[in-house]
Amino acid sequence: MSVLYITPGTCAQAAHILLRELDLPIGIEMVPLRTPDSPIHRINPLGRVPALVVDEDTLITENSAILPYLADLKPDSGLFAAVGSPERAQIQSWIGYLTFDVHAGCFRPFFRPDRYSADASVHPGIRAQAIEQLYLALAHVDRHLQGRQWLVAERYTIADLYLCMFVSWLPRLGNTERFADLHNLARLQAAFQARPATRQALDFEAAR
Amino acid sequence: MSVLYITPGTCAQAAHILLRELDLPIGIEMVPLRTPDSPIHRINPLGRVPALVVDEDTLITENSAILPYLADLKPDSGLFAAVGSPERAQIQSWIGYLTFDVHAGCFRPFFRPDRYSADASVHPGIRAQAIEQLYLALAHVDRHLQGRQWLVAERYTIADLYLCMFVSWLPRLGNTERFADLHNLARLQAAFQARPATRQALDFEAAR
Repeated sequence: MSVLYITPGTCAQAAHILLRELDLPIGIEMVPLRTPDSPIHRINPLGRVPALVVDEDTLITENSAILPYLADLKPDSGLFAAVGSPERAQIQSWIGYLTFDVHAGCFRPFFRPDRYSADASVHPGIRAQAIEQLYLALAHVDRHLQGRQWLVAERYTIADLYLCMFVSWLPRLGNTERFADLHNLARLQAAFQARPATRQALDFEAAR
Repeated sequence: MSVLYITPGTCAQAAHILLRELDLPIGIEMVPLRTPDSPIHRINPLGRVPALVVDEDTLITENSAILPYLADLKPDSGLFAAVGSPERAQIQSWIGYLTFDVHAGCFRPFFRPDRYSADASVHPGIRAQAIEQLYLALAHVDRHLQGRQWLVAERYTIADLYLCMFVSWLPRLGNTERFADLHNLARLQAAFQARPATRQALDFEAAR
């Protein structure tokens, strides 16, 4: 059986929530990160999650690959789109934007400023700038959502799921009022939180 | 006709080279960046390339979406893989890694340190750290290539193309000796540079 390795509070939550949406026969294993004896080091040489082990020869990493792969296992779910369709490319495009601009561009420098400067005295400035850049990156998404219910097409897709996971991280920044005028994001986020699959995944992670 | 908007020297080169590989009937338009009167602002609200306009309602951005979309238009090219195959997910996984860890994680802080700190006096430290992080990120790829000719499967794919574009950027960092021991990357890079499509795209960009 395939196994998805996750760690609560990381971006592996997107893959975890999607697994609950699709109700696929794939195991879920929780692993600690950044401890030398974690089993994740035997699975993924980078020691990171999400990591999807399809079989003993096949490891798939990165949400931008795992979310499309899982959704393609149940095309009737409507969470992705037909191969070759512009809609599919637009869903992958939003996932790419969120990976590049939101996760790597903002949350990572906020959580891991040491990756951006070896001088710890400048880390507060890097974190402050990360919040400003994140506001700009999310304001772009909020403008796109004006007059639209979902990011792409007329339905909830893996692009919305991935976006909403990041929106749910905003309280960790300690400056939620900075994002208070992004009303379209807040509306989408409420729909995401109300989905049974979201609640199941969050409850499962919280219980461990 | 669909049009791909590019700017020489940017990551749009990956989409441009792929277009030459596939010999698709898609127009190529060169646009300046970061000038208020560039036509790119009417095409893409972020003012960025690559931007693929499929029709008047459909804009596709981000290499991680454009490369798969274009390759799917000619499945017999072998540059991508069949939907639902683990191979396809692994190609998308490497593209995600390169987007997250190499482009957003390293080249962007090197080229745009202002996005990571408002204090210009700390930018040299951010650029130095970007080179160290890039070495680590590419060394992971080099280890994966040990004993393998290509990143995934037994053939050149869009993952190799995307990787080699970033490797071709290394001289811009002004510290090529830092990367001199990554011999597997250098071997892959030589194969990339020898491909007619790569040469056509680079010559086209250089002539403008």
